[in-house]
Order: sequence, then structure tokens, then C-alpha cells
Amino acid sequence: MYMSHIDHIGFAVRSIEESRKYYENVLGLECYKIEEVPDQKVKTAFFKIGHTKIELLEATDPESPVAKFIEKKGPGFHHIAYFVDNVNEALMIAEDRDCQLIDKRYRKGADGMDIGFIHPKSSDGILTEFCSNKFVL
Amino acid sequence: MYMSHIDHIGFAVRSIEESRKYYENVLGLECYKIEEVPDQKVKTAFFKIGHTKIELLEATDPESPVAKFIEKKGPGFHHIAYFVDNVNEALMIAEDRDCQLIDKRYRKGADGMDIGFIHPKSSDGILTEFCSNKFVL
Repeated sequence: MYMSHIDHIGFAVRSIEESRKYYENVLGLECYKIEEVPDQKVKTAFFKIGHTKIELLEATDPESPVAKFIEKKGPGFHHIAYFVDNVNEALMIAEDRDCQLIDKRYRKGADGMDIGFIHPKSSDGILTEFCSNKFVL
Repeated sequence: MYMSHIDHIGFAVRSIEESRKYYENVLGLECYKIEEVPDQKVKTAFFKIGHTKIELLEATDPESPVAKFIEKKGPGFHHIAYFVDNVNEALMIAEDRDCQLIDKRYRKGADGMDIGFIHPKSSDGILTEFCSNKFVL
């Protein structure tokens, strides 16, 4: 497994329209994409700084995992995503290293990426994603 | 203000000795430094991936801000730090943009960095640090 950098940090927010003001007006970052992921019942907004993105996540439905997350913990840090060369292999290696997985195989996520999650039980309590856009057949 | 990348992500942990196992044994990252910051009553462990570091924070005293943080919220995400060319100027600009500051001037932090914090009230609930090692007189 080759893990090159932190691809993004996901923050759960109540409202992208409200939260983006801080990233744009205080930090001076540009929102380069807003995208809905119907599968996850979530709207995402992306800002880039260096090689890493800030991803704001807003629920589009009360049944969205992000809505449930905010209900339980309030808005704030949601997950960290490491860029790997191959998501399926990264998940397989994590499983070999006794990690419980949320995804056994990659699925399609926001921003055109292949993504797969480790269960936070196995990642020191931090919800952790592997992602890649180096697609393999 | 020039902000180039995310310098580090800080995670509050109960025990560096326990938490480092995940970063070393699952993610394969190397802990390149463990350092105590007596001023903050905290012990820190650093792992690097790309241009960004993971900083684990363990309280060395029940009165440490990190101990109080864990007591209130449990272990997990603590802060995000952006690398800037000049911490004092970044704080000044944030203040001009109506941010409440924790630090009006930089102070010395872990890993030889100048650091300064914005209050999370002004940074969309996310405890935010500016840091730099481009020291100015």
C-alpha cells in the first residue's frame, strides 16, 4: 500500500451556506465544487489548500448518516481521508492488520474518487477513509 | 497572508503509547518525534504524511487543556493547523476579519513552531491554529 498524503478532512456542518463564509472570508479559500451525493444523502463543498481538501458535509435528509452524526455529536470533525494508490488493496491490508472495515470494496464517493472506510473502532476512534483517483480495472 | 498547506491535524488521545499502534501498525507511519510541551501540560507525538503531520496530544496533568477537552468531549479531533508565512500577521488579518483570537501574538509550540490560535467561535466551531517556522525578528 502506498499512502502519499492526506487527501481531505471532512467536517459535518448544519449549513454549507453558513459555514463556507469562514473558509472563504477568513481563510481566503475558494470553494471549487459543490456536489450532492444522493447515495449518502449529503451535499458536499470542497476547498483546496496545498495537496489537501477541506470537505464540508451537509445532510440533505434527516435519515442521512451526517444528520445522525450531527444529532449525536454536533457539527465538527467527521473523518480524515488518506490518498492511496489502490483503495481495495488498502482495505485488504487494513483487514489483514486486524481492522474492522465499513467497506470491504471501494465505492464511488464525491469528487470522482474511489473511497472505502475503516470502522473507527479499528482506527483509534477516528473515522478513516482511503481514497484514490488512480482507477484500476 | 500566505497560507500554503495544512501543517498538522491534532488528535487528543488518552495514551500515546496505545494510540500510536494504529498509526504505526495499520497505516505504517513512523513516529519521528515525541516531545513534551510543559507550558501546555501535554506530550505530543508526530507522524508525517505528505506535507502534513498527525499530532497526537496526551495530557501530562489533570489540569491540562487537553485533559479538560477529553473529559468534556472524549478523545478525538482537537485542532487543525494551517502553515502560514507569518503567524502574527495571520492573527492580525483574522482579527480584522472579525475573528475572536485566543492568541494576539504568536507563542512557541511543539516541533519548533511559532503558533497562534483563533477561537473556535470564529472558525465555524473548529479549533484553528496558524503556525510557521519562517521566523521573523
